[in-house]
Amino acid sequence: MTGTPLTERGFIEQLRRMLPATGESLVRGVGDDCAVFRMAEGILGLLTTDTMVEGVHFDRSWHPPRLLGRKLAAVNLSDVAAMGGEPRFAVLSVAVPDALMNDWLQEVMAGLGGMLSEHGAILIGGDTVKCHGSAVFSLTLLGAVDEAEVCYRSGARPGDSVWISGEPGLAAAGLALCKNGQGQDGRWSRLVEAHLNPEPMLRLGRLLAESGVITAMIDTSDGMATDLAHLCKESGVAAEIDAERIRLSPLQQEAVRFCAVDPLKWALAGGEDFLLLFTVPIEREKGVEEIVSKQGFGSMHRVGTIVEGQGVFLKKSGTREDISYRGYDHFVGTS
Amino acid sequence: MTGTPLTERGFIEQLRRMLPATGESLVRGVGDDCAVFRMAEGILGLLTTDTMVEGVHFDRSWHPPRLLGRKLAAVNLSDVAAMGGEPRFAVLSVAVPDALMNDWLQEVMAGLGGMLSEHGAILIGGDTVKCHGSAVFSLTLLGAVDEAEVCYRSGARPGDSVWISGEPGLAAAGLALCKNGQGQDGRWSRLVEAHLNPEPMLRLGRLLAESGVITAMIDTSDGMATDLAHLCKESGVAAEIDAERIRLSPLQQEAVRFCAVDPLKWALAGGEDFLLLFTVPIEREKGVEEIVSKQGFGSMHRVGTIVEGQGVFLKKSGTREDISYRGYDHFVGTS
Repeated sequence: MTGTPLTERGFIEQLRRMLPATGESLVRGVGDDCAVFRMAEGILGLLTTDTMVEGVHFDRSWHPPRLLGRKLAAVNLSDVAAMGGEPRFAVLSVAVPDALMNDWLQEVMAGLGGMLSEHGAILIGGDTVKCHGSAVFSLTLLGAVDEAEVCYRSGARPGDSVWISGEPGLAAAGLALCKNGQGQDGRWSRLVEAHLNPEPMLRLGRLLAESGVITAMIDTSDGMATDLAHLCKESGVAAEIDAERIRLSPLQQEAVRFCAVDPLKWALAGGEDFLLLFTVPIEREKGVEEIVSKQGFGSMHRVGTIVEGQGVFLKKSGTREDISYRGYDHFVGTS
Repeated sequence: MTGTPLTERGFIEQLRRMLPATGESLVRGVGDDCAVFRMAEGILGLLTTDTMVEGVHFDRSWHPPRLLGRKLAAVNLSDVAAMGGEPRFAVLSVAVPDALMNDWLQEVMAGLGGMLSEHGAILIGGDTVKCHGSAVFSLTLLGAVDEAEVCYRSGARPGDSVWISGEPGLAAAGLALCKNGQGQDGRWSRLVEAHLNPEPMLRLGRLLAESGVITAMIDTSDGMATDLAHLCKESGVAAEIDAERIRLSPLQQEAVRFCAVDPLKWALAGGEDFLLLFTVPIEREKGVEEIVSKQGFGSMHRVGTIVEGQGVFLKKSGTREDISYRGYDHFVGTS
């Protein structure tokens, strides 16, 4: 076989064209945090899958296996949170070399089971196979959501405000510190924890879904510049982020000195925060502010505005730059 | 981390002890072809996942990518067939090195999509990631079955007859021929096709489920000696297979001359046939015979009997040997 290699995103785009967008009982296919189908009267099923590859998505030298298992669950749980749903059942595929089929794998499993059960989900099956190379884990999660409450990426309208559920970029800072060999230093524990053991925001997802005030939602797995671009694309709108509005933690700003990076780069292009990014019509912002003040989500804040057009723009010191889909490695112009 | 490496089966047993057998809406967890949960009034959801690793489960040098995609779907579809169910939605995880993210992968996807759609299922999502080693594919399939018709592994009773839906061992013969470099030889095409492009028996699974005559069912993915042992274990019974009853195809017997193997070994220990293996009370055998004669399943035949006790025994020339869980590599005493 021949042919030009595709990028991951290019391949996913090709794949998407092969797949049906909707069907008899399919409500949404590829293009949201979960695929959505009719499960029972008034109830939608949510199906999502995520894969973690050793050496690509995790590093065994610093990722304790129990936390790795928790993170594998969190990545999937976060997708269900972003639809406003509740997780139910998971199945796991494990491909590991002989040398890892021991305590290490059992710790991964224990972490996975623990995280799932903390959020009301259970592992009900799987497949375990041996491989010759790196360990590969794929978790598939089935969730459910009331048809009246489901949150898609596609409902954002010009004029809506853009909110994020916490300080973005903590996980990227934690990863950078682990790579620098400073992962064990206790003063960075909040950042390192954000990378090693992220917490999916399922309770917040449900609160936002029930509130009925939001128009679109996504979780931040690829960084705000990319995740907001996905949301904008599905909604047929553009977004402006105000650099001054993005809340950075003091700890993150301190870590910058050791990692020689612009903290704004972490915030906009750093992946795996698993925060919720959502849009709200201005007249309904009071509903979100109530959740901020009464439900313990004090670090949730407004970062920008939905506008007409396409793309995601960063407004900073009077400039306006297109940062759509900028991944960590390709991020320029923010320092 | 330290610890003794576990076997795959040992690990799955450990995993099983960690997992709930049943729960609020969980009907069956690990231990059947699919996990089973309540999906809607009178309808059970079926969830199954299977992983194929390059160099372990497939060889790119002789497996055309389109057929590989079909097989990945077939492996999962067969699990739904074994429960008497209908497949609905699938999600795919792909971990491939850069060098394969091209036409090859697109052919795999096309084969996968084709096989799913032939059986009324659709791919609705997935995750595509790059890895550094061998390609790993994990497909998760969601199916459904009427609660009154679901077929488990656990219903076999002493006195029931044991049936298989075709000639076992064809896929093992095909694999051996591919390994011998004879996969391109047209005269072996039926055997090679059984290995490269197996057909899941979904229509038969539905017919058997609707007939209400069978007591237990499993698909043959690991070989009859192992799959029947699973069924017996879940049912709390033993089984006797009559060597003389097992139908071997003439082509298989011819291939034996080139591969220097006992065809009975292929039939009992060869994996990936994806036939249905099921049990029937003697007084209801007429129902199965009608399916054989009227529905075009002429190669379906009786191979043995369920008895009290535990294990799977091969009766041959007056001997009775325990062959439970004998995999291909560990199979002895049948030549």
